This record gives sequence, C-alpha cells and structure tokens, in this order.
Amino acid sequence: MQAEIITIGDEILIGQVVDTNSAWMSKELNEIGISVNRITSISDTSEAIISSIEEAMSRVDLVLMTGGLGPTNDDITKKTLSDYFACELVQDNGLYEKIEERLARYKIGMNAFNREQALVPDGARIINNDLGTAPCMWFSRENKHVISMPGVPFEMKNIMQSQLLSLLSDQFDCPCVLHQTVMVQGVGESVLAEMLQDWETNLPSVVKLAYLPSPGVVRLRLSLVGEDEAELKTIIEDQLKGLKLILGERIFAFDDEQIEQVIANLLLDQKKTLSTAESCTGGNMAHMLTAMAGSSAYFKGSIVAYSNEVKANVLGVNSNSIEDFGAVSQQVVEQMAVGSCKAIGSDYAIATSGIAGPDGGTDEKPVGTVWIAVASANKVISEKFVFSKERGRNIRMASMAGFNMVRKLMLNE
Amino acid sequence: MQAEIITIGDEILIGQVVDTNSAWMSKELNEIGISVNRITSISDTSEAIISSIEEAMSRVDLVLMTGGLGPTNDDITKKTLSDYFACELVQDNGLYEKIEERLARYKIGMNAFNREQALVPDGARIINNDLGTAPCMWFSRENKHVISMPGVPFEMKNIMQSQLLSLLSDQFDCPCVLHQTVMVQGVGESVLAEMLQDWETNLPSVVKLAYLPSPGVVRLRLSLVGEDEAELKTIIEDQLKGLKLILGERIFAFDDEQIEQVIANLLLDQKKTLSTAESCTGGNMAHMLTAMAGSSAYFKGSIVAYSNEVKANVLGVNSNSIEDFGAVSQQVVEQMAVGSCKAIGSDYAIATSGIAGPDGGTDEKPVGTVWIAVASANKVISEKFVFSKERGRNIRMASMAGFNMVRKLMLNE
Repeated sequence: MQAEIITIGDEILIGQVVDTNSAWMSKELNEIGISVNRITSISDTSEAIISSIEEAMSRVDLVLMTGGLGPTNDDITKKTLSDYFACELVQDNGLYEKIEERLARYKIGMNAFNREQALVPDGARIINNDLGTAPCMWFSRENKHVISMPGVPFEMKNIMQSQLLSLLSDQFDCPCVLHQTVMVQGVGESVLAEMLQDWETNLPSVVKLAYLPSPGVVRLRLSLVGEDEAELKTIIEDQLKGLKLILGERIFAFDDEQIEQVIANLLLDQKKTLSTAESCTGGNMAHMLTAMAGSSAYFKGSIVAYSNEVKANVLGVNSNSIEDFGAVSQQVVEQMAVGSCKAIGSDYAIATSGIAGPDGGTDEKPVGTVWIAVASANKVISEKFVFSKERGRNIRMASMAGFNMVRKLMLNE
Repeated sequence: MQAEIITIGDEILIGQVVDTNSAWMSKELNEIGISVNRITSISDTSEAIISSIEEAMSRVDLVLMTGGLGPTNDDITKKTLSDYFACELVQDNGLYEKIEERLARYKIGMNAFNREQALVPDGARIINNDLGTAPCMWFSRENKHVISMPGVPFEMKNIMQSQLLSLLSDQFDCPCVLHQTVMVQGVGESVLAEMLQDWETNLPSVVKLAYLPSPGVVRLRLSLVGEDEAELKTIIEDQLKGLKLILGERIFAFDDEQIEQVIANLLLDQKKTLSTAESCTGGNMAHMLTAMAGSSAYFKGSIVAYSNEVKANVLGVNSNSIEDFGAVSQQVVEQMAVGSCKAIGSDYAIATSGIAGPDGGTDEKPVGTVWIAVASANKVISEKFVFSKERGRNIRMASMAGFNMVRKLMLNE
C-alpha cells in the first residue's frame, strides 16, 4: 500500500517553518505497512492544491494532507477540497457548539470566522479533532482517498494516533509490520555499533536494524515485514535475548519509552519522590519530568541554582567548597544533590553543575564538562562527563545522563 | 523568478530524517528574490527523479535538488541526471586528486566507489564542494536549469553561500522581496483576525499577510514583492504604523525575535536580574531562559514548587493562604513571586500556579486555569488565565503569558 503526503502553507515555502509533520506521518504510516512514495509542500492556493492532489492520485490511492485549515482568510483548503469533491459546506452542530464553548471559556462571542470553522463538507467523512476546531476530512472517489488534517502538529498527531491510523489499517490490506525499539543510554552510536558488530552480522535477513541517535540516547529499531505475525514475534524475542546479554543495564526501555517515563514508573512503584537541583541543565530536567501528566505524584520540585548565591542560600552548599573547588566540581554537585533532598523534602535528587557553553570553558574544564550527582537517604554517587561543544546538546545530554544515574541508583538500592 | 526544490532520499520518506534542507534553501532563495513554488521529496529511484524533474520544469525554469550523491549503490542521482541531459560521465582530475588525498588521510586506497565519485557529466557546469567530495552540478537546457547538490546539510549550505547564491543572482533577473514579521502575544488567532479586519482589508495589494500561530504567540508576516526596494520599505513602514496603533503593547518584537530574547535584552539594558517560581510550568520558563547562551548574566535561578511544601518552606508562602484559597489562587501566586525575588535575590520574578491537566480540574477551576504573578521591588501584578485542555499547550502558553507580563512590567516601571 502506497501513499503520498501533501503539506500546505506558504510558511514552509519561504522557509519560515520546517515541515516536521511529514516525517512524523511517514514514520507512523510505515509502522502500519503504508509506505510513503512522495512528499510535496505547496502554497496556499486552490490551483496548487488541486494540481498536487490530481498528480498524487494518478500515482497512489491514498493522499494525506495537512495545513491550510485555520480560521483566517489565507486558509483555503476546506473550500477548495469541498468544491473539488463536489460537496456542499454545511454546519456541523457538534463542531459549532464546541467552538462556541471554547470561545466562551475566553469570554468571546462567535464571529464570522468562527462560524465558517463550523462548516464541514457534506460528502466527506468527518473525524473528530479533540484538541482543536479544524476538522479532519476524509474524501473518497473511485477508490482514491484524500484525507485533510490540520497543520498544527499536536492536533494532527492526536488525530492520527487516536483514530486515523486504526481506520487506515482497517480500510486497507496492509502486510504485517513489526517494529521493536530498544532504548540505550550512556553509549555513543559508534561505540554501540562496535559492541553490536557480531550480533548484527548474525541477524536473520528478515530483520532490518536502524540506529537512531539523539542527544544522550540511541534508539535501536528492529523492523520486520512478513505475513506471519507469530513467527516475526519469535524472531524478535530471540534477538532481544542476545542484545540484553551484550548491553545489560545500558538498555533502559523497550518500545520508545522515554527515560523520564521509566523513572516515573520506578518512583510510583516504590512510592518514592524526586527533586532536582539544576545548574547547567537550567530547569530542563524539571521541565521534562513535569511535561508528563501525573508527575506531581512523585516529583516535588526543583531548585534551579543558576547563581552561586542560590547554591549556597537555598541548597545549603558550603561557600568554601564553591571557592576552593569551583561551582563545577564533585564537592559542589554532591552537596547540591543532598541539599535538594533536604530543602525540597524528596527521597531522591539529581544535581547538575557544568559548563553548557558556548563561553565559560577553560583548559581544565572545557565547554561540555558536567558533574552530575544523585542522592538517596543512604548514598551519594557522582560522575564527571565531557559532552559536546554545543549548548543545547549539553543541556540535553546532561539531563539524560542524570536520569540514567538515578535510574541505576534506584534499581540497585 | 520561481523555483522548485526536490530532495532525494528514502530516509526522508520513511520519516527517519526531517528534511531541513528545503526550509533553509527556501529562505536563502527568497532573500535574493527567487520564490519557491513547491518542495518535493522523492525516493532514490531514476523514475522518481526523472518524473519529478519533468514536472517541476513544466512549471518553473529553475530546479534545485539535494541528495543521492553519496558513494554507495543507493545514490543514483548523478547517473540519472547525466543520462537525462545526454551527458557523458568523465573523470574530473582535480576531484580525483581531492578524493585520493582525503582517503590518504585515513590511510585508505581508492576503490571502485571512490573512482566513480570522481566522474562528472561533461555537459554540466561543475561547482566546487569545498567540504566534501560530491560535486554540485548545474545542467541547462532551453532556458531551464537543474542544479544538483549533495544532501549533507553543511556541504549544501557552504556551496550555496560561497558560490551558488551569487551565481543565481547574476544569472536571473530577480525582483526585490521584503518580509516583515510582527510577533504578537496575548491574543488568539481569530480575535487577532477580527481586530485587524479593517486594516487587513485596506492593505495595498502588493502586501501579502499571513497568520502563523503557535501556543501563546501569533506571528504576522507581511510579504512584498516589487521592483523598487525603497518604495516597498515605505509601504511596510506605513502599514506597521497602523498595526502598532491597533495592537500596541501586544506586539513584543519584529523580525522573529522570541519573547525570552526580548526579556533578556531588557534585563541586560537595565542591568536587572530575573528569577521564576514555577508550579504548573514546572521549570519550562527557567529552561527557555537558560537555553539562551549568556543567560547567567541576568537569570539567577528558579524554584520549581511542584508541591505545597516547597511553596511554603522554600518560597515562604503562608500555609493558611494555600489552605484558604488553594494553591491555584491570586493570593498564593503573588506570594510565590515575592518569595522568589527574596529567596533567589533577583530584581524581578515570574510565578505560575495552575492546573496543567489532564486531571485536577474542578468546575470552579477547570483544567487550563492558571494564575500568573510578576513582582519587582515596588509592585506585584497578577492575572488569571484559562488556556486549553492540553497539558503541553498549557505549560507553553502560561510560560509565554508570564514572559509577556514581566515584559510589560519592565516597560512600564
């Protein structure tokens, strides 16, 4: 089964926005056995929309589109598709009420733009958009399907994950595709490749392996396409056994689970709480933890100690230690971790102190040098890392390493 | 002058890699007056390459391609284009030596793949790639131009910036293109559209307007194409005057500057410092501020007070206030802001307390309810917001609103 993706929006064509929707959609479609043949980005004009749909439909049976569904005048996808598929735009009362209710929360009345948002094409299948007001519309004609979704990434992703992917699986006869992800922390891509060389050479030919590195984490993805799901599953199980023997605790999760989610589950299981004391990570660990729903059950808070005063006054770090060893030191980061447990009243704490860059590096402590400590009631463990020259990458890698250290501490207590 | 971009590579179509080349190229081309009409991503096959070139050449005179020029078997762009433009592949001696020299550094001898890399089409103009071995090739036929570049981003960018952009400017008679971005906080897209309706209706036809919303911020983009740059600039100036009259302080920046950067500049100018006390934003404000290089000059730290204990013990919020009014209340958030200035020792503070969701909402305080306070030595200002039902969006919108409140406080002190 082949599909094409069309993304609509002048902001893409003038380079103001990078089209990240297409890559995400391609990946999700691939996972259910639909391969993407071509991705096209076009401008907000009827002519471009119609010509690109016609071209795509001449090549494939399924076209997914995003964008051009906002309430303003420059968004013309809905009208264009309705005309093209000979539909009438009619009011969707459910959608009208939803928009009214949403506006009421902001104490705003309906205007002409909002009323237009509540119109849907009568010949299309309408799929609910729980996170927004632009509907997802599925047009069909002679076994060709065109599905239009909003361009706002979280709305589009939610529509696909909660409804569209399973509707597509049902509609089309897709082969069995299995993916198994293995999440690895604490080893870079090339070292990992070396560790896995023999295992990789002996993989059955039906298994495709990909290394997907991101700062601090390497995802390994095993992909198998075939007819017999049970057989594919057995092959995966066998290969995972081998991987576990080689990588041990470096594997922190299977199936794309993030490391902060792994920690969350450990804390919930053990009924323990966590805090962070962040210098170079600047609140990123707290942000990543609190981005998860329900995090208040185990995350109590953070002290972002960007200045030495805060390290001393709020976290109780000894000023002499800062003077003698510097803020980026084992002594200071260990006191930060212990101080965080105490000031915040948590069972565990992670502390970071480092030089994120681009400035502030010295010969002895170059940019990328980060001390990280984790503390429990019984133990403090610290480790020094030298990450990269790039600020954002250092923040991210230090956060991941801190999460991994607390994970290992919890597993081994 | 119109162009199209074609990016080649299966890694894009399976979603393993986000195509960032196109956005970068589009932006650079726009700046020299070449507008991009369409962006197409295709697979590594001759058929896809030829059909996409033919389609693009039927619409525009200039096609820029990236990708498919590596040394491995799946990269077939060079051969395909040479055949299509009836060229012979001949050895480029300079390139041959360069590849030989490069391999010698790793103590590797030339193999068949490397020798093939040194071949170039005899009918094409060859543009040097200083950072790699895949050449840039410019094919022309009947006033149609196809330019193929390597897909490695830093190689492609270097070719364009050091040579290709000026060659394109010389070759084609490009009009003048101006873009003006206006960054707006505190008004949603549809309310903004209503506020600007009259102004928008009266825009000169040469001005194209786009609304680019993201959580908490709407970017307005005015685009003008013409011959006389001075004239276009005058038109923009005039229209900006009108916009400023309507939107006033809701505009926080021009030209794509982020709101945290605006605050950073204000703090640096006024030699003041900032801290944050974050409940529902969970460290996101601290993270956004510290993501900027040099932020330690004005950002002193943050207390992420996810539990009520931390609000009371670290920020000094009166426990009775929490009990009487709840953690999400004007009383508590104002004390958090004042407490943050005091505990951290900063001139300004932003505090947030709200229900990010998905759980925890009540009839009186539904999910999305957020109290935000900003404090200085002289003043505390607080405001209640009701954002959305989606956790990530609420965190983002509350952060933006908090930044905007401190911006306005600083401007009006």
